[in-house]
Amino acid sequence: MRSLQVRLKSTPSGVPMPEHFSLDHADLPALASGQVLVEVLDLSLDPYMRGQISGRHMSGRVDPGMLMNGETVVRVLESKADGVAEGLVATARAGWQSHAVLDAATLVPIGFAGLPPSLALGVLGMPGLTAFAGVNRLLDIRPGDTLVVSAAAGPVGSMVGQLAKIKGARVVGIAGGADKCAWVIGSAGFDACVDYKAAPLRDGLDAACPVKTPGLGGIDAYFDNVGGDVLQAAMERLNLGARVALCGLMEQYNADVPPPGPNPAFTIKARAHVHGLVVYDHEDLRARMLREVAPWIRGGAIAWKEDVAHGLEQAPAAFERLMRGQNFGKMVVKVAAS
Amino acid sequence: MRSLQVRLKSTPSGVPMPEHFSLDHADLPALASGQVLVEVLDLSLDPYMRGQISGRHMSGRVDPGMLMNGETVVRVLESKADGVAEGLVATARAGWQSHAVLDAATLVPIGFAGLPPSLALGVLGMPGLTAFAGVNRLLDIRPGDTLVVSAAAGPVGSMVGQLAKIKGARVVGIAGGADKCAWVIGSAGFDACVDYKAAPLRDGLDAACPVKTPGLGGIDAYFDNVGGDVLQAAMERLNLGARVALCGLMEQYNADVPPPGPNPAFTIKARAHVHGLVVYDHEDLRARMLREVAPWIRGGAIAWKEDVAHGLEQAPAAFERLMRGQNFGKMVVKVAAS
Repeated sequence: MRSLQVRLKSTPSGVPMPEHFSLDHADLPALASGQVLVEVLDLSLDPYMRGQISGRHMSGRVDPGMLMNGETVVRVLESKADGVAEGLVATARAGWQSHAVLDAATLVPIGFAGLPPSLALGVLGMPGLTAFAGVNRLLDIRPGDTLVVSAAAGPVGSMVGQLAKIKGARVVGIAGGADKCAWVIGSAGFDACVDYKAAPLRDGLDAACPVKTPGLGGIDAYFDNVGGDVLQAAMERLNLGARVALCGLMEQYNADVPPPGPNPAFTIKARAHVHGLVVYDHEDLRARMLREVAPWIRGGAIAWKEDVAHGLEQAPAAFERLMRGQNFGKMVVKVAAS
Repeated sequence: MRSLQVRLKSTPSGVPMPEHFSLDHADLPALASGQVLVEVLDLSLDPYMRGQISGRHMSGRVDPGMLMNGETVVRVLESKADGVAEGLVATARAGWQSHAVLDAATLVPIGFAGLPPSLALGVLGMPGLTAFAGVNRLLDIRPGDTLVVSAAAGPVGSMVGQLAKIKGARVVGIAGGADKCAWVIGSAGFDACVDYKAAPLRDGLDAACPVKTPGLGGIDAYFDNVGGDVLQAAMERLNLGARVALCGLMEQYNADVPPPGPNPAFTIKARAHVHGLVVYDHEDLRARMLREVAPWIRGGAIAWKEDVAHGLEQAPAAFERLMRGQNFGKMVVKVAAS
């Protein structure tokens, strides 16, 4: 069996582009006992992959010549594993390829029914768990709080806002572009969305987050997906006792040298509590997330959006769009017709 | 009655020096009912005063021509207030002057006996409460933790380390100079003290705080009094789940434009919890601090050190020394013989 594979060709400086990847067929090994042959249905593209390419991500590194890592939804074509039947659909870390031979024990069943399996890569997968942990474990959301979240049209950001809204917060998104902001308000139900491409970010935040405490700002909780100047602008506007979850650093993933961060005075002045969030620490919340969130999605109380690229050969260009913030929703590559 | 007073003459750029202050006598108003005439025994000089001069501190601002603010130990010379007798020694916010007419209700009794009243300005006052709140409320010290604290020979830093040591932590100070480090280890009982003037700070921290988690650092708890590069170096070395209290910003108090801070990636990578600490929020701990810490000081279990300047006219030069980190211990001006 042969697999179509995307490998890293060279380590990019700046935004990775299709020229930094190669597309080739490779032979797969024969199935051993306990293994399965799978076809990849959906490939998840995620910002953390940029860190792997530059050797800076805690989850592993991808050097030139190596297959790109990635989480996938797969279907079992052939099984030499007890209890795993042909046709099973599950998630697995098959990477950027069309087929794979995997240890059956590494397959993770889809934890919900009645919804597209690709949601296991997005709002009901790692991005959803990230948001769920931030809202339920770190941000201590109380009714009436003003919560701000960056990258609000993405899978993490949109879930953070919707989950905080259910807890009674006033929810303000930050996103780039009128189409994204329209979706964030109209479909995801945010109270406001600041379009940083339409007007100065600080003006937008000031309008959407009226000051609550003289000398301080109007943000009670902030979930950061991007770092850089967006984080800086939010830190400048924290209210007394604000909680901040630092989660993503999109603005610096493509920088050769990480830039500095906000001055500590903002944290001191607001007596803020700033938490580093890594989703791996919160696996214990996954079952609860699926139990609570899947029904909300099925019932339409929570909206989700995918940005779908068709065909594995489109993965590098789709990844470039993700890195440039040009995606609209969770970036998924449909590798095989499901 | 006349009072010798130190007033701000001009707003300095950079480190305030004696030329930025004026020393003159001023007439005090006649005593009204409910008021007391006091002589100032001890004047506390503290880093926050720099922020008041530049109008950046939450506790108030001092413009040119105004009397410098400050906490003092005073003795009542004359009283028109019921229940307040001549000779009473108390703390009050009399500012940088020799005498003052104050509302008796603003006097705060010295909350301990058998120790010098000036400790009410230091280890048993605001700096002590700052340290007590950091260790007991924000840093979640557990036995075996490695705690690092900057400005370790100062009143806040030395108390942070000694209180954390009592809770079972391994305690590492950062201070500038062999004499300070010798006191921090020999008298305050720290396990180690990094002299950033003797060798590169990062080398010293690496030696004193062996890595506990591969890919991360050896610091479980960090109490920051200075900001700037010292904070940066500590953030680079946080262990998994580290707690950080941001409290002082000595490295930037004299900067016209606040510099940036550490990249948020350090907080994320360590899943750290970073808290802004302002002592005013923790008044509820003051009685407990006095109850617990005063006996430790009387019994010699906790060491303290004052850097004493004699005479109000020395206050500006002493403040300059404080701003340059040349003080050794809590900076106190003896205004009158007690």
